[in-house]
Amino acid sequence: MVGSMTVSVNSTPPVDLCANGTVHQAELLSASDDDHGGIIVDMKEPMDPDVFHAKLRASLSFWRQQGKRGIWIKLPIALVNLVETAVKKGFRYHHAEPNYLMLVYWIPDTPSTIPANASHRVSIGAIVLNDKREILVVQEKSGKLKGTGVWKIPTGGVDEGEEIFMAAVREVKEETGVDTEFLEIIAFRQWHKSFFEKSDLVFLCRLHPLSFDIQKQDLEIEAAQWMPYEEYAAQPVAQNHDLFAYITDLCLAKVDRDCVGFFPQPSRSTLDDDDQIGYLYSNVRDSSQSTSAAHQ
Amino acid sequence: MVGSMTVSVNSTPPVDLCANGTVHQAELLSASDDDHGGIIVDMKEPMDPDVFHAKLRASLSFWRQQGKRGIWIKLPIALVNLVETAVKKGFRYHHAEPNYLMLVYWIPDTPSTIPANASHRVSIGAIVLNDKREILVVQEKSGKLKGTGVWKIPTGGVDEGEEIFMAAVREVKEETGVDTEFLEIIAFRQWHKSFFEKSDLVFLCRLHPLSFDIQKQDLEIEAAQWMPYEEYAAQPVAQNHDLFAYITDLCLAKVDRDCVGFFPQPSRSTLDDDDQIGYLYSNVRDSSQSTSAAHQ
Repeated sequence: MVGSMTVSVNSTPPVDLCANGTVHQAELLSASDDDHGGIIVDMKEPMDPDVFHAKLRASLSFWRQQGKRGIWIKLPIALVNLVETAVKKGFRYHHAEPNYLMLVYWIPDTPSTIPANASHRVSIGAIVLNDKREILVVQEKSGKLKGTGVWKIPTGGVDEGEEIFMAAVREVKEETGVDTEFLEIIAFRQWHKSFFEKSDLVFLCRLHPLSFDIQKQDLEIEAAQWMPYEEYAAQPVAQNHDLFAYITDLCLAKVDRDCVGFFPQPSRSTLDDDDQIGYLYSNVRDSSQSTSAAHQ
Repeated sequence: MVGSMTVSVNSTPPVDLCANGTVHQAELLSASDDDHGGIIVDMKEPMDPDVFHAKLRASLSFWRQQGKRGIWIKLPIALVNLVETAVKKGFRYHHAEPNYLMLVYWIPDTPSTIPANASHRVSIGAIVLNDKREILVVQEKSGKLKGTGVWKIPTGGVDEGEEIFMAAVREVKEETGVDTEFLEIIAFRQWHKSFFEKSDLVFLCRLHPLSFDIQKQDLEIEAAQWMPYEEYAAQPVAQNHDLFAYITDLCLAKVDRDCVGFFPQPSRSTLDDDDQIGYLYSNVRDSSQSTSAAHQ
């Protein structure tokens, strides 16, 4: 390893010219490769913005030489003082969570294949009917129906990483105290631009009650009750809005029909190294059944 | 309207003490109310960070007096020099898109009811079978199957604001040049942590081909063809991975079964002022049918 401060060869990191005219060997940012020919910089420790600027400049030119494609920088909110530097070097926002901001820069001249940001929030509506033809309903403390006296089915968000059917059981328990068993998804709907530019995807789930005593949650729920089904369906809002009417139809249709919904069955992840177990929703109740049906 | 520079009453914006000790009447940021007792600041014009700091401080104290709850600030990327100021005043990131960052601050002492960020990306897989029992398949230029020789069904992302069934038709056309008619969604699946902390929700769609000539898209697709169904299903990857096998089962099961999937029907948005038209997916083909069935 023979070398000196003035020797520069292709394989060494590029030389950086500082504002004061001195030349020094800029260090590169710590980084790791991703699966798509790109680089991920996961910044954890504080850094002076000038040092960050010099390292980022040197790193970008090194990665460009190496033919790297998408460059990701994850900045914890505590390092907010580095955001402006990254943006001034050409980075764009990709996504953000409360405690970090993800920035990205596309090096090649070809069109960017940077994946899109998450576009949807996923939520559930829970239809719980008991044997007396009563439906489990709530009144909410906020939102568009606040103070209207309208009774609605329990609804709520599917948490990050949570299964849809588990979210339905959880939300009903949280809002009303009622234990349920998941039966099926009977319908779903998208709502566009429901939250800034994002969309909502709402899954209507049918659940079977395992307990009946109501203990409402106080933070979000004004009232909760078992309501005769005809009374629920006769609310003026149900007459005027498709989804209320639809729920009515679907619930009553269940009496006369088979084969209405989708239900989950465990399924291994394909093509992933970690062999993640997930759930596939369809109306084929069991894959061995479906195989035998298919091969008849 | 009698007043002077020294009069201060409750209804006027608060007084701000500058760093140099002079007292002046700080202007408030331009803002509008949201539907949940909060405030939205949609910053559009550049502002000096010191001026922004003074206005933000005055505004926050005014909004606090008014009993406001969630405070949103939308900063275009061109105003990246204001991000640090907002964070230092206690704002947290909420979400980001390439050209803007949304920050939020929760004023009350009660637990925050700030809605969660989008958690899912939504995509489709398209099953297109012709009358010769051939399935439309592609090989991709990037991703985990790159270079493996595996033939897979066309897949792709649902764009922001796009309907799922329209995305399926569009993706097949883009990747293979084949025109199709949407038939039904036969299954869907969540993949957790597929992209950083986010989840993917993949809808398997069945489509009927309306044309047969293949013109593949060059950017993402290595090859495309109509492949005898048995050959597709006999690929080693299809033997080893649930989802491939599942597609096989579902497609063959269609021959013997009715009532497999969900199809879209137009539906008015409920409870929204803009009366948005969307699509509700279920296996009740027509709401008038379902109503009559329900009332039998």
